[in-house]
Amino acid sequence: MTGRGRKKGEAIPQGVVGRLPVYFRYLSELAALGVDKVSSAQLGEALDFTAAQIRSDLSYFGSFGQQGYGYNVAELLQQVRQILGMNRRHSLVLVGAGNIGKAIGSYEWFRAEGFVIEAIFDVDPHLIGNIHGGCAIRPVSELKQYLLKRPSDVGIIATPKDAAQEVCDVFVECGIKGIWNFSPAQLDVPDDVIVENIHLTDSLLRLAFRLNEREQRSGF
Amino acid sequence: MTGRGRKKGEAIPQGVVGRLPVYFRYLSELAALGVDKVSSAQLGEALDFTAAQIRSDLSYFGSFGQQGYGYNVAELLQQVRQILGMNRRHSLVLVGAGNIGKAIGSYEWFRAEGFVIEAIFDVDPHLIGNIHGGCAIRPVSELKQYLLKRPSDVGIIATPKDAAQEVCDVFVECGIKGIWNFSPAQLDVPDDVIVENIHLTDSLLRLAFRLNEREQRSGF
Repeated sequence: MTGRGRKKGEAIPQGVVGRLPVYFRYLSELAALGVDKVSSAQLGEALDFTAAQIRSDLSYFGSFGQQGYGYNVAELLQQVRQILGMNRRHSLVLVGAGNIGKAIGSYEWFRAEGFVIEAIFDVDPHLIGNIHGGCAIRPVSELKQYLLKRPSDVGIIATPKDAAQEVCDVFVECGIKGIWNFSPAQLDVPDDVIVENIHLTDSLLRLAFRLNEREQRSGF
Repeated sequence: MTGRGRKKGEAIPQGVVGRLPVYFRYLSELAALGVDKVSSAQLGEALDFTAAQIRSDLSYFGSFGQQGYGYNVAELLQQVRQILGMNRRHSLVLVGAGNIGKAIGSYEWFRAEGFVIEAIFDVDPHLIGNIHGGCAIRPVSELKQYLLKRPSDVGIIATPKDAAQEVCDVFVECGIKGIWNFSPAQLDVPDDVIVENIHLTDSLLRLAFRLNEREQRSGF
């Protein structure tokens, strides 16, 4: 076995963090297919990373690979799960039961992997009481009261932009440290709160930019 | 005026590309509020970038800032729009009319900014003919025939994972060069096709990882 262990408290580079979920998804597929072993070259080809990059990424977390053998899929998957903090239950609350909120609430994968949406809130009185993904939709006016009684790990914001900061402030006030933001708002949070954004417009604009750039380059 | 012009064909670093939509969103807000001028220091504070980074980013596209004056918001916004390829109409087709597809189809902003979803396809016979965002939902069996008659700029995949590659292959065969992928699938495309992914699970896993890392670090 080779590799360096990660020192406690040493931050992992953002680039590596960004690739971890990709490893997780691919290793899950291999495991589901009953594959036992995988080499860094095979991982690299499947994921479009270099084998050297893969060895470097994985070495951040200790030593798994063996020369001439590769990685044991089940062990590596288990390690990646642990690194990702997936070996525990996460409780989530969701604010906003529109189309995006409904899509999130009905994603089976989340619950299967221990990310459990325990309550859904919306401002629309017509939606209150509807059952979605096993949760009755509650009035957002009860959000703070709910969270003070039942602390949650992650708050999901799937509201229109104008409501997002207000919801975020309630989350922060109630001690939530992780916010998953689907609104286009740029949220203002204290330093100890982590925000992960899904900005649909940014993603579409990046695509448009790359298309535009490609056309311009191929035009000259 | 200061700054370097971008050479034709010179690729813009991914980090800069990733920040452009953030500039766009913020400048749009300033313009909507009637703000005329903004300094790199103000931009930096609002967006949590350093002023030096902002000057460096914007210099990629020519010279706009003036010492002691800052940037003209309307001009800068116009330039960012042009760089992003937003000064033209984009035609989009969407495959998958589930919750995610519906959310995408009902996003007013896209149409307002010239990203027009012209057709929606689904495999579910119960959905065919329903109107969504002004489009009648068509059977996915007609996708290829449609695209061969009406070439589109961007194909959106909002299907379950198992259907994604097949839809992608039809897009590619019909000459689509930009794919916006909401499925968890890792798509296989030729080199000249650009894929922009929205992987919900990856995003949630990054959040879980950062929460876990924070807890471990604060625990020691």
